[in-house]
Amino acid sequence: MSYQTEKLKQEKVIRDPVHSHIYIQDQIIMDLINTTEFQRLRRIHQLGTTSLTFPGAEHTRFSHSLGVYEIVRRICNHFQRNYPTQNGGQDGLWDDHDRLVAECAGLLHDIGHGTYSHTFEHIFHTNHEEITQAIITSKETEVNQVLRQMGPNFPNQVASVINKTYPNQQVVQMISSQCDADRMDYLLRDSYFTGAQYGNFDLDRILQVMRPYEHGICFKKSGLHAIEYYIVSRYQMYLQVYFHPTSRSMEVILAHLLNRARLIAQHPEQYPEEFQPGLLQPFLTEQFDITRDLTQYLQLDDGVLTTSFSGWRTFPDPILADLSTRFLDRKPFKSAQFTEETKPLLAHLRQLVDAVGFDSTYYTATDNSYNQPYDVYDPTDQHPNAQIELMEKDGSLIELSQASLLVQTITGRDVGDSRFFFPKEMFQPEAAGLFAETATQFQSYIQNDHIIQPKESLHD
Amino acid sequence: MSYQTEKLKQEKVIRDPVHSHIYIQDQIIMDLINTTEFQRLRRIHQLGTTSLTFPGAEHTRFSHSLGVYEIVRRICNHFQRNYPTQNGGQDGLWDDHDRLVAECAGLLHDIGHGTYSHTFEHIFHTNHEEITQAIITSKETEVNQVLRQMGPNFPNQVASVINKTYPNQQVVQMISSQCDADRMDYLLRDSYFTGAQYGNFDLDRILQVMRPYEHGICFKKSGLHAIEYYIVSRYQMYLQVYFHPTSRSMEVILAHLLNRARLIAQHPEQYPEEFQPGLLQPFLTEQFDITRDLTQYLQLDDGVLTTSFSGWRTFPDPILADLSTRFLDRKPFKSAQFTEETKPLLAHLRQLVDAVGFDSTYYTATDNSYNQPYDVYDPTDQHPNAQIELMEKDGSLIELSQASLLVQTITGRDVGDSRFFFPKEMFQPEAAGLFAETATQFQSYIQNDHIIQPKESLHD
Amino acid sequence: MSYQTEKLKQEKVIRDPVHSHIYIQDQIIMDLINTTEFQRLRRIHQLGTTSLTFPGAEHTRFSHSLGVYEIVRRICNHFQRNYPTQNGGQDGLWDDHDRLVAECAGLLHDIGHGTYSHTFEHIFHTNHEEITQAIITSKETEVNQVLRQMGPNFPNQVASVINKTYPNQQVVQMISSQCDADRMDYLLRDSYFTGAQYGNFDLDRILQVMRPYEHGICFKKSGLHAIEYYIVSRYQMYLQVYFHPTSRSMEVILAHLLNRARLIAQHPEQYPEEFQPGLLQPFLTEQFDITRDLTQYLQLDDGVLTTSFSGWRTFPDPILADLSTRFLDRKPFKSAQFTEETKPLLAHLRQLVDAVGFDSTYYTATDNSYNQPYDVYDPTDQHPNAQIELMEKDGSLIELSQASLLVQTITGRDVGDSRFFFPKEMFQPEAAGLFAETATQFQSYIQNDHIIQPKESLHD
Amino acid sequence: MSYQTEKLKQEKVIRDPVHSHIYIQDQIIMDLINTTEFQRLRRIHQLGTTSLTFPGAEHTRFSHSLGVYEIVRRICNHFQRNYPTQNGGQDGLWDDHDRLVAECAGLLHDIGHGTYSHTFEHIFHTNHEEITQAIITSKETEVNQVLRQMGPNFPNQVASVINKTYPNQQVVQMISSQCDADRMDYLLRDSYFTGAQYGNFDLDRILQVMRPYEHGICFKKSGLHAIEYYIVSRYQMYLQVYFHPTSRSMEVILAHLLNRARLIAQHPEQYPEEFQPGLLQPFLTEQFDITRDLTQYLQLDDGVLTTSFSGWRTFPDPILADLSTRFLDRKPFKSAQFTEETKPLLAHLRQLVDAVGFDSTYYTATDNSYNQPYDVYDPTDQHPNAQIELMEKDGSLIELSQASLLVQTITGRDVGDSRFFFPKEMFQPEAAGLFAETATQFQSYIQNDHIIQPKESLHD
Repeated sequence: MSYQTEKLKQEKVIRDPVHSHIYIQDQIIMDLINTTEFQRLRRIHQLGTTSLTFPGAEHTRFSHSLGVYEIVRRICNHFQRNYPTQNGGQDGLWDDHDRLVAECAGLLHDIGHGTYSHTFEHIFHTNHEEITQAIITSKETEVNQVLRQMGPNFPNQVASVINKTYPNQQVVQMISSQCDADRMDYLLRDSYFTGAQYGNFDLDRILQVMRPYEHGICFKKSGLHAIEYYIVSRYQMYLQVYFHPTSRSMEVILAHLLNRARLIAQHPEQYPEEFQPGLLQPFLTEQFDITRDLTQYLQLDDGVLTTSFSGWRTFPDPILADLSTRFLDRKPFKSAQFTEETKPLLAHLRQLVDAVGFDSTYYTATDNSYNQPYDVYDPTDQHPNAQIELMEKDGSLIELSQASLLVQTITGRDVGDSRFFFPKEMFQPEAAGLFAETATQFQSYIQNDHIIQPKESLHD
Repeated sequence: MSYQTEKLKQEKVIRDPVHSHIYIQDQIIMDLINTTEFQRLRRIHQLGTTSLTFPGAEHTRFSHSLGVYEIVRRICNHFQRNYPTQNGGQDGLWDDHDRLVAECAGLLHDIGHGTYSHTFEHIFHTNHEEITQAIITSKETEVNQVLRQMGPNFPNQVASVINKTYPNQQVVQMISSQCDADRMDYLLRDSYFTGAQYGNFDLDRILQVMRPYEHGICFKKSGLHAIEYYIVSRYQMYLQVYFHPTSRSMEVILAHLLNRARLIAQHPEQYPEEFQPGLLQPFLTEQFDITRDLTQYLQLDDGVLTTSFSGWRTFPDPILADLSTRFLDRKPFKSAQFTEETKPLLAHLRQLVDAVGFDSTYYTATDNSYNQPYDVYDPTDQHPNAQIELMEKDGSLIELSQASLLVQTITGRDVGDSRFFFPKEMFQPEAAGLFAETATQFQSYIQNDHIIQPKESLHD
Repeated sequence: MSYQTEKLKQEKVIRDPVHSHIYIQDQIIMDLINTTEFQRLRRIHQLGTTSLTFPGAEHTRFSHSLGVYEIVRRICNHFQRNYPTQNGGQDGLWDDHDRLVAECAGLLHDIGHGTYSHTFEHIFHTNHEEITQAIITSKETEVNQVLRQMGPNFPNQVASVINKTYPNQQVVQMISSQCDADRMDYLLRDSYFTGAQYGNFDLDRILQVMRPYEHGICFKKSGLHAIEYYIVSRYQMYLQVYFHPTSRSMEVILAHLLNRARLIAQHPEQYPEEFQPGLLQPFLTEQFDITRDLTQYLQLDDGVLTTSFSGWRTFPDPILADLSTRFLDRKPFKSAQFTEETKPLLAHLRQLVDAVGFDSTYYTATDNSYNQPYDVYDPTDQHPNAQIELMEKDGSLIELSQASLLVQTITGRDVGDSRFFFPKEMFQPEAAGLFAETATQFQSYIQNDHIIQPKESLHD
Repeated sequence: MSYQTEKLKQEKVIRDPVHSHIYIQDQIIMDLINTTEFQRLRRIHQLGTTSLTFPGAEHTRFSHSLGVYEIVRRICNHFQRNYPTQNGGQDGLWDDHDRLVAECAGLLHDIGHGTYSHTFEHIFHTNHEEITQAIITSKETEVNQVLRQMGPNFPNQVASVINKTYPNQQVVQMISSQCDADRMDYLLRDSYFTGAQYGNFDLDRILQVMRPYEHGICFKKSGLHAIEYYIVSRYQMYLQVYFHPTSRSMEVILAHLLNRARLIAQHPEQYPEEFQPGLLQPFLTEQFDITRDLTQYLQLDDGVLTTSFSGWRTFPDPILADLSTRFLDRKPFKSAQFTEETKPLLAHLRQLVDAVGFDSTYYTATDNSYNQPYDVYDPTDQHPNAQIELMEKDGSLIELSQASLLVQTITGRDVGDSRFFFPKEMFQPEAAGLFAETATQFQSYIQNDHIIQPKESLHD
């Protein structure tokens, strides 16, 4: 189905350091950007606690969303120039009538993301994908009102692209597949803003070799190495940026802090002072209900959280106050790797932490980067068409990991590690006062090869 | 005077996209970075409302401060390698005993900056330079405690570099002069994060031609063009980034919003609902007193402000609620240039704005970019040694604007413009309902050459 | 007139570090690139002797020509997307029928350039513009044969774009005007390969604000600063790269060397050994005749010259042998600035050079960078439409220097200097042996302010 | 042994686009750069025929050699700052007395390289490593004369670094090991000038984690991923740049051309015209003798070869003339992959080529990129200390491929392919005239899966 779009009288451009400029050509795109729900993304960091490790990484989901839109726009241009359909897409080529739904879906794919999503979702059982759908389809939102101007069914179509049920899989795969506009933008962007050079693959070249086919999007075989390089870049970014122990440690503190706040919010009578959860109130005291709580959810942002923490620094619960301070002043826990074999030893370490006077429920954690919300290329994925397919000159297809040893190596492998987090003070016996001896014991336990982890595994 | 510094056992590096890495070699620098006052700079944008125009510009005073430190460190290295004194600096060459005070001053030069400084200072009469001095010299701060470890007088010495009274003017000019580490870092950094390419001068070359002399720092004449280019870069950044009408418009809204909040905070009884100023309370209701209010000041950050605004969206004062929404959802005022001649016409425009139902006190403003807190090179500056001096091969000096026509051109000139700000609705008669006619009248008044401003001057 | 172009079945791309990729879409463009005349440009440096100052600057007229084509292609795309004519260009908008002639002219605009053009033309009275016309229009060349496939008149049309007589001035100005594809490519390219950062203006932005109008090409006023920055970049590149004293000094040696070779070629009988001018023969012994000598001209390239010089190192004419060695081994002359006032003193300096035993005809020179073949923006240019015009929103035009003080400053000014070149040995009395005293006298004459030039003016 | 170096009064800098600037601090380095043998490297491309595929790759061995020197200089600085020996290197730390020998060796490591080395050495049995040694140690060269100023044994010491026998393996490994200054510079440089982004690893980070130890140079384990990325970059550069079929095809033509010229030079009487081999004469007619022919060797450069080819275009040997034209006008042979299994079929293909009238000796070739002169990391290398060793925090070592799966994958693998080269005309039956049928047969033979190579393997 084709939508009548109102073109802007004059193309507008937004300056973007990653793509140089974002080109806005349709009134509806401009209007979506100007909605309150979309503007809210300016106040949500793209990488959560990562800026506490890489100080440049202050970029937001707002600029990322613009970047995804821009890549989608460029893919559509390339498809329309080189692979235009003659029969409404029956020939497996590109039907430009789908352009607008693709561009809107690209722009809005992260609209449901909230503050520190990974931790927040884990603690409060929100789900950013559900919320994205809700924002697009609920009549109350500005986003929905803008989309409805294209027709009553348009919001559902955009939403269906994001949940992958849209009939034209070319559109779906532009937004969600192993080499989609989302991943390509975030690698380039995270690389640019962190200053890590590892995410800097060759976008121009990948766009050149991308092509539509009957089952979605594939890549010309001649582009194999460009894609290989993109996969390696992604792998390096996981290892060096996304799984960085310090960022994970700050997430651990954040999670404990929110859990403690929930406990207090549910038992405020136990404290001599009024507890002020601010805009977090509904999330701390009740089970999240997407229909009822969407408005409250949309009021949250990173500043709301840190403002609450700032107030809690002096609250008369020592754990809440201390964890708030650690988060705001960036005092990460230390961490050590553990393995399946050494895992049983953690119980003793927790006891020592307790013995020094830190409640191990709030002052230790284990964390497994395998569970991080970043997907390494996985050929066993249940969406087979989300794999990367290469097209030979004769039209036959080959799955990427069949053609590339490097990709195969990365694919068959776990990336990341398991870590045990604990207060730095456990390594500063002189700071532990009366408990110096226990701390010393803890430290030797950690550092001794035969007991827990060796050498490089320790991280500040 | 020389300070015994504790070197880190192992150099630490912080990844930075502008300088590639920041090198930390002294324990005291690490400790200063870890103070609560310094970490707070992570929550204060370097460019205030500019990210509302350039979405990449989310960088903070934290990374800028690290960058200034890094440039100071590199200058000291260069001076010590090429111009080491033989007699404690009597020969006009570099005395490396001053390195640590220089590095600390570079790191801390912005420590007193608060949220949206320019507007905030204007409305609440705070002064970031005074506060910087206070943070460094007050015994209560963590920064002061770290500095005192070097000796009881060390904090004062660092503070005196920042207020320019430190005896060694080479150190002073590293931090504050026309071509200092502060300006060099912010041009490169603002250029990098906005994506505007104009601030991208040749730092390596400038560091090569920089040299100490008896009155401070000068530049080898052979570096003339590199410095010329730096000055032109700065000029372009003012025109294209710092004075951008949209950012200024958002500052206008912020100022009106804070003024309105103050009025309400001082008359809360007039509202049916409790007004919640949050951490802004002391600033809204009392005159700022630096001794008494430093702690409160240090609790503020950009998130605190936007969190308050978020709460105010639904407060039963329509002006406060509307301005809060405009700020959070980025609904800038429109603006038109005016001149001394057309200025008298503004009164009538304000009447028309009032007539449509917008209180012109809160919905219009004039703003003069000449007053912006950015200094264009000014040879009439009362600190003559803050000018840029070039040294010929024979040791004689020539002031930069005497040697460069380009600089002279820029120097003798006002940069920027005067603008009148008003709601966009005044240009959308169809949205003005009953007042459509008044809006039409307003629009024609603005757009007609003979009355107010011509052509290009209008900005969304 | 419209040409039927054969599109390539599949777009071809050539990797280019400046534009990322060059996109080839037409068979004729591919065929032109594959001609012998065009491939020859691979063996001619873009910047002549500049690589002797900036070692990275080894780039050739081949890649520059591809770059100019690519920028023309992008301009045509932008024009066709945003300003397509409705009536064959009568409305002042873009007629895409002219695209192919524009692209060919962009590709071929430098096809007549020869080895070290500036010096070569000066000595041998060749003219690269005439030769460009000849290559395009002579039936003997492969270029002409390719062009003729489009129609018998096509070569003339392409040639007429280059000599500026093509009716559609939009096409002409794409290739030759103050802000054309030629200048834009060479600034970016020379900046990239020298490593000088000064030529790095914002091409994307300039292409956005460029637009066709009835008299050619102008720029939207909102792009003023981008163009200002481009002009300043060009100015800086003249000062820092194109007019560099060392490169000019090497050109002086080259000119003297070719002159000496001509003298010898015309009097070979005076030497005990056969003089081998190689492929330079016809140029040394006869007046260049474009009709007769085109084939010989096309055999020359930079390698042919240096190969001849290599052979001449041992020829029994001491001046030829020495100058050949100086050129190949990069032994530049030293130079000092002079002014109109000090110019009369040069005669005495030449006498001293002679006195030390260097023939001042071949071992000194004066050179005036004002005469360099690079044009600084000049509003008095007799082609008024080659100026840069800015278009206001209401369609009125303003000439750039009227709108920009920076440009005005640069425009009204001579750029560059006058230099006197002489052997380095004149500054090494110890190397002058018997003539040490004369050398000392020379040196003091040069270095003494009151006599000839002061301070910074001296260059190795 | 320590050498007294004369420091330059003032550091000199050479602009370099890869490292920003090259810093020259010693008179001897300046003097070496100014020798005739070193300046000659300006006339030898770093990448031979690669610029015929990537037009930007015109960079020379001159700038590469400067780059290697600069990296060595930075490594020495880093070692001296962080790992200075206390006992002449007995402690496995860095002895800065070795700095000068390291810097000279870095600068001169490629001084023996000639024009199109790979092909030239293959055809004429020269050996650039032997020649490097000869240039450094023969009393006749300017390089040797400069080196001897440091002491009579200094040239031998520099030479011994290059042939890996210098006692301090730290110095040796700076110049020749799996991650040395040579490889690091060429990857960055080749990446920069080709525009391929694949060689762009993180030099700063690698220099940070590099450290001296008793057996040479190793890397801190924490730098694992930076090194992994460097290895993958190198792998990608091999695949995408160094082994590019078009460049190899042009090398094939060059080799056949030189072979043909040798045949003619040895039988000049068979031709009606005098054959002019120019400076190639001694190489064509006699076995190369390094003692006798060094002077002649040093006269060769890329321009000398192309100048000869230019003259040969019209020589009355059709094969020589045609191959010369193909090389100068860049008319590569086409190529197809073959395998061990399909190899026997090549004989028939050669017969078809002969049948069409191309002498298959000069118009076909097989080429195996495994034999290319680029080394992929190989742990079975007989120089075990040339492997990359990682140092854990406790001082223990682990070989890189043991710690990195990616490296292991690359290591255990052949990179590259085997290709059969033949004239493009074999695929243009219409151009084959009478032999159209044979050409058609050839083409079907190549393109049919079951006979020779499939799909993607064909390259223009």
